[in-house]
Amino acid sequence: MRAVHTVKELHTALKSKEHVGLVPTMGALHAGHAKLIETARGESGGVVVVSIFVNPIQFGPNEDYSRYPRPLEQDLEICKRLGVDLVFAPSVEEMYPQPQLTFVEVSRVSEHLCGKFRPGHFRGVATVVLKLFNIVQPQVAYFGEKDMQQLEVIRRMVADLNVPVKIVGVPTVREPDGLALSSRNNYLSEPERQAAPALYAALKHAAGRIRAGEKDAAKIQSAAIAELEQSPLIRVEYFEIVDPGELQPVVTADRNVRIAAAIWIGKTRLIDNVFL
Amino acid sequence: MRAVHTVKELHTALKSKEHVGLVPTMGALHAGHAKLIETARGESGGVVVVSIFVNPIQFGPNEDYSRYPRPLEQDLEICKRLGVDLVFAPSVEEMYPQPQLTFVEVSRVSEHLCGKFRPGHFRGVATVVLKLFNIVQPQVAYFGEKDMQQLEVIRRMVADLNVPVKIVGVPTVREPDGLALSSRNNYLSEPERQAAPALYAALKHAAGRIRAGEKDAAKIQSAAIAELEQSPLIRVEYFEIVDPGELQPVVTADRNVRIAAAIWIGKTRLIDNVFL
Repeated sequence: MRAVHTVKELHTALKSKEHVGLVPTMGALHAGHAKLIETARGESGGVVVVSIFVNPIQFGPNEDYSRYPRPLEQDLEICKRLGVDLVFAPSVEEMYPQPQLTFVEVSRVSEHLCGKFRPGHFRGVATVVLKLFNIVQPQVAYFGEKDMQQLEVIRRMVADLNVPVKIVGVPTVREPDGLALSSRNNYLSEPERQAAPALYAALKHAAGRIRAGEKDAAKIQSAAIAELEQSPLIRVEYFEIVDPGELQPVVTADRNVRIAAAIWIGKTRLIDNVFL
Repeated sequence: MRAVHTVKELHTALKSKEHVGLVPTMGALHAGHAKLIETARGESGGVVVVSIFVNPIQFGPNEDYSRYPRPLEQDLEICKRLGVDLVFAPSVEEMYPQPQLTFVEVSRVSEHLCGKFRPGHFRGVATVVLKLFNIVQPQVAYFGEKDMQQLEVIRRMVADLNVPVKIVGVPTVREPDGLALSSRNNYLSEPERQAAPALYAALKHAAGRIRAGEKDAAKIQSAAIAELEQSPLIRVEYFEIVDPGELQPVVTADRNVRIAAAIWIGKTRLIDNVFL
């Protein structure tokens, strides 16, 4: 495995490579990323590239950009073990050598859920992902379903801009107690970690109520929020039932919806979702 | 020469082509476009693709989208005569098969000059050009310097998004009396056509004053506007002296500026610019 840090080195390393699969990450790799990489290796038959870049333009001014974990050596070990061919770990200066004036905006799909509470976040995500696609020029790219809105923003961007990259969503990997794997789980204290599985439990309960015939989205939502806030450690940021295309909140929850939520546990923000 | 109308046909036609040069146009081809095409043919040694697409998302609600000329048969004849290999002339439905939610915005460079008077115009231009780049995947693309702000918006987009396309600016072609060639010149009545060369004349006079040592941009600007509005047919929309990077108006006009203007003659809007 090779690790490169500049676009030029990357292009040299990928020269005349026929098929490239890209797994874009912010590092702090866990078993969820491992599943993305394994999916890429299993499907591609070509070169698997993992990018590791904590992208400043997708963090708000009061978010965790500076404290976001950056265990690069450990990440490189994990990539090596998983049979990654090439790691692209650029500096901020390499990705943004001059003031970034160009941004990609995906309206509607970015509007609700996390988009409402993290203004500019998906603009930063769409912009850096398009940059990575243009730099690496993969045929396929892999994203986790845990970040469902991110995945849908990227799918829509790719369709709307005719980007020649196939997008593959990979199912969420969970701890035995249901907690979705996330680099941010590292921030949790022991009691916070104990409280965290309530997020997935509430999403599953809401899905169960819809499967049992409940259609009133507001009713399901308020029950879920009440359930979550039974824990004194949890504050609900949003709990929404949305359509699967443009992720707009629905009034009537039918069998073709997604349920997504964000909660705060102490200073840590966790997100999760379920598909129906 | 072949003409295709769908992305699929285009991809079949370009399969395994090594080097592609793209000339994006809105059709109504004139000698300015011919120069773009000749430059592409001279440089590329590969396939020359001309796209012809009157892009609705770059026109404002009160602009000339519906009356913009669309002489497709004539354009195809011109392309054939100029040795174009492939014309891509998609329908609006082919380019925008679903509501376009994704847009590319280039701030600052889009802010002044035409950007001030055509809100959303450069967003529409940047978005469609990126779509065309993703569809055609050229190594090089050719744009006229007459649309100087468009050229700079595209250059900045390509740099900021790491788009793997080389952008070549091609000098403006002019009538013997100095009028820059434009598809919109067709709109002019005979007296309007007589008045139109005043635009380039005023730009040249302003450049001459700077070369002669005048540095006060406001003074040069007001003299040029007075000169242009001596004609009862002309209304000046803007006349600006800007820096060559982000196209911001300057207070002090030094030797490294661009002068750009837009005028209305009757219902026709004309733009032009000079480099120093």
